[in-house]
Amino acid sequence: MNIKVTILGNNSALPAYDRHPTAQVVDIREQQFLVDCGEGTQVQMQRFNIRRRRINYIFISHLHGDHYFGLMGLLTSMGLMGRTGELHLFGPPPLKEIIDLQLAVANTVLPYPILFTPVTEGMSRVLVDTPHYAVHCFPVAHRIACHGFVFTAKSGGRRLLPEKCRELEIPAAFYPHLKQGEDYLRRDGLLIRNDEVTEPGPPDKRYAYCADTLYTHSFIHHLSGVDAMYHESTYLDDQRERATERFHSTAAQAAELARAAGAKRLLLGHFSSKYQDLAAFYTEASAIFPDTEVTVEGTTYEI
Amino acid sequence: MNIKVTILGNNSALPAYDRHPTAQVVDIREQQFLVDCGEGTQVQMQRFNIRRRRINYIFISHLHGDHYFGLMGLLTSMGLMGRTGELHLFGPPPLKEIIDLQLAVANTVLPYPILFTPVTEGMSRVLVDTPHYAVHCFPVAHRIACHGFVFTAKSGGRRLLPEKCRELEIPAAFYPHLKQGEDYLRRDGLLIRNDEVTEPGPPDKRYAYCADTLYTHSFIHHLSGVDAMYHESTYLDDQRERATERFHSTAAQAAELARAAGAKRLLLGHFSSKYQDLAAFYTEASAIFPDTEVTVEGTTYEI
Repeated sequence: MNIKVTILGNNSALPAYDRHPTAQVVDIREQQFLVDCGEGTQVQMQRFNIRRRRINYIFISHLHGDHYFGLMGLLTSMGLMGRTGELHLFGPPPLKEIIDLQLAVANTVLPYPILFTPVTEGMSRVLVDTPHYAVHCFPVAHRIACHGFVFTAKSGGRRLLPEKCRELEIPAAFYPHLKQGEDYLRRDGLLIRNDEVTEPGPPDKRYAYCADTLYTHSFIHHLSGVDAMYHESTYLDDQRERATERFHSTAAQAAELARAAGAKRLLLGHFSSKYQDLAAFYTEASAIFPDTEVTVEGTTYEI
Repeated sequence: MNIKVTILGNNSALPAYDRHPTAQVVDIREQQFLVDCGEGTQVQMQRFNIRRRRINYIFISHLHGDHYFGLMGLLTSMGLMGRTGELHLFGPPPLKEIIDLQLAVANTVLPYPILFTPVTEGMSRVLVDTPHYAVHCFPVAHRIACHGFVFTAKSGGRRLLPEKCRELEIPAAFYPHLKQGEDYLRRDGLLIRNDEVTEPGPPDKRYAYCADTLYTHSFIHHLSGVDAMYHESTYLDDQRERATERFHSTAAQAAELARAAGAKRLLLGHFSSKYQDLAAFYTEASAIFPDTEVTVEGTTYEI
């Protein structure tokens, strides 16, 4: 099962050149996950045909404004559009207070429940786990508490060998259990081992969003072999010192990390407003890690 | 001295049809006042060539998100752009807490001071008064505490009659006092009455922003004879009941108020997202008050 990532905003804090602050939508089997929500995200969603009602999960990496100042507007609009279904929100603990305060002063009660899960500093754990997808968080290294997220599209388990199943007279009702790796005990007492009637299914797909971070290997184990990773590249490498001072990375550093992690593909974003032309980001990173893409807002990357 | 009003957003809460939530810039003698600051205001400013550094005064009418969710982004960007000069901010008292909380969680200290003046419920008073301009607030009738603002461009006082001044040997250094209406006592004891050497100057110009409100005459005395008033018209008059229920107005009601107040000109805004075509707003309002304009984002109205 593929993962689709649609970039809504790939600029750093100051909006410029029609690039917007950070937001992206991860789609797994038509379940949509919003990752960060900079100012104007709801307008970018309209522009790129992302339907707000389809978003059931929102993840906020950290509380710098360019990653969440669009959240209140989106939550309010969802309410005005009559949403009633649960919304799952994950983010730093103070996010709850910020939302509650702004709803209270507006004398507004949203017509749908927000189920908030605090992501506390340094936390590394599974946040969502279903038969089809899972999400876990990991800490990155930024000026304030900040987390990345890994999205896993589960493959659907082992692949059946239909002829073997029929030959061994396994009832079709048991097939879902076979896909999950279970053995089958026949009525006549014969134990049929799972690997007699199935083979390994396609592997899971994994996509890692690394949020805002300086260059470090501290979370590289979360990126190991991922099918794609999105890593910030606020600057080019001639600004490596400035990048580190500001807890950001360069394009070359993002590529070095992708290579060291054995990632299959690198998506770059979070470009500083000082750069209008982004061609050099590709040149710099692809020299180190060839399968690099400089993301473009409105583009959907199939992973 | 003219007042220029540039509309940055004239839609109600849900952005639609490339219309944006409320924000406008009032310009008097190149001093710029930002009035309300819906999400995306800083991007609208870039789009319409309003320079963020020129804004020294911001007025927030009330704490519904479509009137202030763009404020944090704008304040943060001003900081990133190196602003050091004072910013005067006027709004409901909880606005301070909302800003302080969001700066604190971001571990951010702005490089410029915000001088916050709370505008408390029901308050009607002068907020700014200088030789060239003044601003006062007045309460309107909305679901939560909400204020309108009147901007006055002072004319510069009485107009000198230069020949008379010379004839009566009044030193030029005293001319500014004459413009303010003072008499002159000559060294030889002759009292020269002000109206012997001046005539009335051009009148002050006044612009009233009425924010979000249901139809009421409760604040009509603040609008008496204004050169222009901006009044919300969320709905057309066939939705009069719904408008009242939601503490909003119709185009016909805005026109009725403009006529009753003796305003010279009416600017309409805060259109509901249910209307794509706004022609009927003009038809409806101008039948009652001919000098009506349906505002267009990016347009500057000279008053």
